[in-house]
Amino acid sequence: MKLVRFLDEGKNKSGILEDKHITEISCPILEAFNESEKISQHGTLDINDVKLLPPVSPSKIVCVGLNYKDHAEELNMDLPDEPVIFIKPSTGVIGHLDSIIYPSSSNQVDYEAELAVVISKKTYQVKEEDADDYIGGYTIVNDVTARDLQQKDVQWTRAKSFDTFCPIGPSIETQLESKQEISLKLNGKVKQKSNTSNMIFSAQELVEFISNIMTLNPGDIISTGTPPGVGPMQVDDTVEVEVEGIGILKNYVKK
Amino acid sequence: MKLVRFLDEGKNKSGILEDKHITEISCPILEAFNESEKISQHGTLDINDVKLLPPVSPSKIVCVGLNYKDHAEELNMDLPDEPVIFIKPSTGVIGHLDSIIYPSSSNQVDYEAELAVVISKKTYQVKEEDADDYIGGYTIVNDVTARDLQQKDVQWTRAKSFDTFCPIGPSIETQLESKQEISLKLNGKVKQKSNTSNMIFSAQELVEFISNIMTLNPGDIISTGTPPGVGPMQVDDTVEVEVEGIGILKNYVKK
Repeated sequence: MKLVRFLDEGKNKSGILEDKHITEISCPILEAFNESEKISQHGTLDINDVKLLPPVSPSKIVCVGLNYKDHAEELNMDLPDEPVIFIKPSTGVIGHLDSIIYPSSSNQVDYEAELAVVISKKTYQVKEEDADDYIGGYTIVNDVTARDLQQKDVQWTRAKSFDTFCPIGPSIETQLESKQEISLKLNGKVKQKSNTSNMIFSAQELVEFISNIMTLNPGDIISTGTPPGVGPMQVDDTVEVEVEGIGILKNYVKK
Repeated sequence: MKLVRFLDEGKNKSGILEDKHITEISCPILEAFNESEKISQHGTLDINDVKLLPPVSPSKIVCVGLNYKDHAEELNMDLPDEPVIFIKPSTGVIGHLDSIIYPSSSNQVDYEAELAVVISKKTYQVKEEDADDYIGGYTIVNDVTARDLQQKDVQWTRAKSFDTFCPIGPSIETQLESKQEISLKLNGKVKQKSNTSNMIFSAQELVEFISNIMTLNPGDIISTGTPPGVGPMQVDDTVEVEVEGIGILKNYVKK
C-alpha cells in the first residue's frame, strides 16, 4: 500500500495511491501505520488534481554516511564496522515537485539518492529482529549536500542542513522487499544506479544502532545512505530519484 | 526577567522566577517573549514545591564548535574564520536536576558548559544587527559528549545525540548583558571558568550565520560553544553549570 499526503481545496489530507488515483482516507498516515483497521475510504481523486506534500513531518532525519558496498569500492575505502550518522533538521524538508534552492554560500550542490525508513511509533533500544514492528514503511530522500562546505567544515551538518535540502516522497510504501533497484537521473540522464541489496547495514540494523543512541519519534526518517555516482546539480536542473516499488521523487533546482 | 516552566499538580505551567519564588503567568513562554503585555500573574509558589522543566521544547539545538579564544589557546589552534555547527536532537533534552544517563557504548562522557540563545520567533536570513529582535533570552546548556565516540566517528553527531545529553535550564533570562562569567563545577570543584566576552562569534553573529543556512523555529536553541577545561564525568557525579545573570543548571550522572 502506498500512502500519500496531499493538499486538496486548501486542506492537508491523506490517501492511498494506486496508479494515478488517490483514495482519500479518514485518518492521518501515522495512525494508518499502527491501526490499519481504522482506515475508511472516501472519494477518489486524480493525482494531477492535487499537490503532493512530504508524506510525513519528521522531528528529525537521521542519515547514514557510507552504506553501499559499491560506493565504498568506488571510493577505495574499507567497509565501516559501524554506521556513521548525522542529522538533517526538519526545516530542510520539501516534497515531490518542490524546488531545491541553491544557496549563495556554496559553489557545489550535489544530489544523493537514498532509500528512507519511516518510523511508525516511539522507538528506543529496539533490536534488529524487532525493528520491522517500528517501521511504518519506506520512502525516498534526496540527501542534497553542499559538497564544498562539507569539505571545508569537516563536520557535515552545515552542508546538509540548508532549507530545501531534504526532498522526501512521493509516497510511503508500507510493504517493500529488501532488494530494490535505486537510481537517479539528472535532466533525464542516469547518474546513480545500484540495488538496495548492496547496502552494508540493513534498515533493521540501522533501527537497532540509532535507537540505542536516541529515541526515534513517529514520523522520524532514517535515510540509509547513497550508492556510487554522486555529483553536482546546477540551477534549472531537474533531478529524479527512483526506488523500485516506491516511485519517483522529482525536484527542480532554482536560484 | 527570568522565565521558567514547571510541573505543578500534574500540569505544565510557566512563571517568572525571583529569588526562590515563582509567580505563575497565564501564557506560554513563547508568547511571553513576543507579547509581554499579555502576561497576567497568578499566585506565587516556592521553587522547592515544584519540579522545574526544560524552559523550552526546541525542535532542534544548533551547537557551535570551538568558540572561546581561551579554549583555542588551550588547544593551540588558530581562531576559525567561520563557526562550525552541529545539531543535537530534541530527544536529548532534559531539565534542571534531571539525570544524565551514561551510555554503555561509551567509556568517556564529558561535560561542556555553554551559554545558549533561545529563539523567540521564526528566524530566517536575519542580519546580526537585527538579531536581538529574534532572541527571546538566554539559558544554559551542558553539551554532554561521548568523547571516545566523537574521536572514533570524526562526525560529532552520535557522540552528542544520546538521550539525556542536552540538559537545558534552569531559567531563561530575557535581558542579559554580553559579558558574563561562565563556570562549571564537578562534585563542587571548579573545572571550567571563563567569561562570555571570550567568545569568538557573538550570539548575534551566530544568529546571522545559522539563519542563513536554516530556518530557526520559536523555542529553538543555539548553544554557543564551551570554554577551556572540558573533561570526563563518572556515574554518581554531580555537575553544575553557572552563567552569571541566569543561574545554575545542576544535573546528576546515573547508570
